[in-house]
Amino acid sequence: MPKSLLVVGSIALDTLRTPYGEAKDELGGSATFFSAVASFFVPVRLVGVVGEDFPNQFRRVFDSRRIDTAGLVVVPGGKTFRWHGSYQGAMNEAKTEHVALNVLGDFRPVIPTGFRDTRLLFLANGSPVTQASVLDQVEKPDLVVADTMNLWIETQREALLALIARVDGIVLNEGEARMLTDEYNLILAGHKVLALGPKFVVIKKGEHGSLLVIRPADPAGAPLTRNVCALPAYPSTEVRDPTGAGDSFAGGMMGYLASTGEYDFQHLVRAMAYGTVTASFAIEDFGLRRFERLSIDEIDARLREYHDVVTF
Amino acid sequence: MPKSLLVVGSIALDTLRTPYGEAKDELGGSATFFSAVASFFVPVRLVGVVGEDFPNQFRRVFDSRRIDTAGLVVVPGGKTFRWHGSYQGAMNEAKTEHVALNVLGDFRPVIPTGFRDTRLLFLANGSPVTQASVLDQVEKPDLVVADTMNLWIETQREALLALIARVDGIVLNEGEARMLTDEYNLILAGHKVLALGPKFVVIKKGEHGSLLVIRPADPAGAPLTRNVCALPAYPSTEVRDPTGAGDSFAGGMMGYLASTGEYDFQHLVRAMAYGTVTASFAIEDFGLRRFERLSIDEIDARLREYHDVVTF
Repeated sequence: MPKSLLVVGSIALDTLRTPYGEAKDELGGSATFFSAVASFFVPVRLVGVVGEDFPNQFRRVFDSRRIDTAGLVVVPGGKTFRWHGSYQGAMNEAKTEHVALNVLGDFRPVIPTGFRDTRLLFLANGSPVTQASVLDQVEKPDLVVADTMNLWIETQREALLALIARVDGIVLNEGEARMLTDEYNLILAGHKVLALGPKFVVIKKGEHGSLLVIRPADPAGAPLTRNVCALPAYPSTEVRDPTGAGDSFAGGMMGYLASTGEYDFQHLVRAMAYGTVTASFAIEDFGLRRFERLSIDEIDARLREYHDVVTF
Repeated sequence: MPKSLLVVGSIALDTLRTPYGEAKDELGGSATFFSAVASFFVPVRLVGVVGEDFPNQFRRVFDSRRIDTAGLVVVPGGKTFRWHGSYQGAMNEAKTEHVALNVLGDFRPVIPTGFRDTRLLFLANGSPVTQASVLDQVEKPDLVVADTMNLWIETQREALLALIARVDGIVLNEGEARMLTDEYNLILAGHKVLALGPKFVVIKKGEHGSLLVIRPADPAGAPLTRNVCALPAYPSTEVRDPTGAGDSFAGGMMGYLASTGEYDFQHLVRAMAYGTVTASFAIEDFGLRRFERLSIDEIDARLREYHDVVTF
């Protein structure tokens, strides 16, 4: 049975440069990518902040989807969060050219009363203190998943560890997993993350796919296959802008989980496959443009194709 | 129906240093790993060279398996090829500390008369001129697959391109594929390799798995899934020495293909899965030690487990 899904994260105007072109003040941000993707699966509740300069055309991106913007704060006279990034070569890593936090810098998310009964909560990348304050405001969620970044691992490690102990799942990229655990082998890094409290960890490896490591019900006897899933990326040949791939992955994953209301290993694995596929659409064009012309049928068709690609 | 399989490549004494220990004068070399692994699937014909110093105990590694050493040359008074390598951190890349080609430097492989009717030929890494001379000596093979390395891409590009035009398949690692084609996207790099002549290319990505790209029967209409397979690595937690992983992959792949005598896309995909699994055993211990205590049943059991790991 479908369950309610809430995301708290950033809404941004991105200026991007990749080997395939440039874009200025493109719609971006973690909560934006997440909610646009997840809304293909279920209605999504959004909490975020923008400035008065936030363009109406982008506001329509939310309003034209199943995205409830009751938690979207517009700060009078404020400026929207801006990020300038560039990519080179294989585009595996974004180079931050410039950041202006603007209204995001002072944002203390308030969860609207109508959102407090949310069952699935995604804490997009943000300060672990802010993430914890959001968690405090949601009454009794079924499933809480958090993202983070190297900045918080380095500068707010204690607060981050306290947050990780409170969530069901955490999403990290390869470098963050190694940084957090001081362990090169990603399966062992996953085990170390699980020792911090969560039930599962998803390690994203960009063009190399993703890993799911879950806490076995019976640590002594559980075979490998019940605890680990490894998936390659969808073999994309059209990669124009990787921005938002990680949040699109999370949006597909959480959107699918919310649509089923089931969180066991098999559902988590299928959710990862959906995340892989939704991320593969995100990178085909700048910003959220590819999602403008996407349907759940096309997502499902690519999932079937992806299934064939990894089947032996 | 099983078919005959021949490998021509190096036999080495390796001195290794990894975060998990050290080993001196350990049995190694491309033809050694390849033939040890492939012999789990079919009898293997070996062509290679060693010096008079090659230890009897290592000779028994060949003699105790289904490896025909009629093509193994022992150079009187000569010294065996030696390689000193080290690995750090995630052990993704070997650092060559020292190389002594010794008898390998002057080796001009002669294929014994009884080997010239071989149906499957694996040209392990070596000078493309030497690889071509081997190909000239095999009468009418069904399937020829070659490996190479960055050195030949840089220093013998023309000879390498001439060789690639004559083979059915080529095995490259990620960096080599990019260097050969000047293309970052690995699927597109695969397409560029296919334009050089082969029917398929396997791109190995170490801990990130492998890609198979084949020439579609109908380039215009063939869907993606018929042309590409992406497999993650087996999620190993015991990685002691990555030396020989690539040749163990090739040995599992070619050994399986030789055991079936079929080379269509589905068999190539399954061969990649076998290669993934045999490589995962290679890296669990130094040199060939893990293969001393391995059986085809254990390989098949891990293949089933691996299948579950990638199924969604």
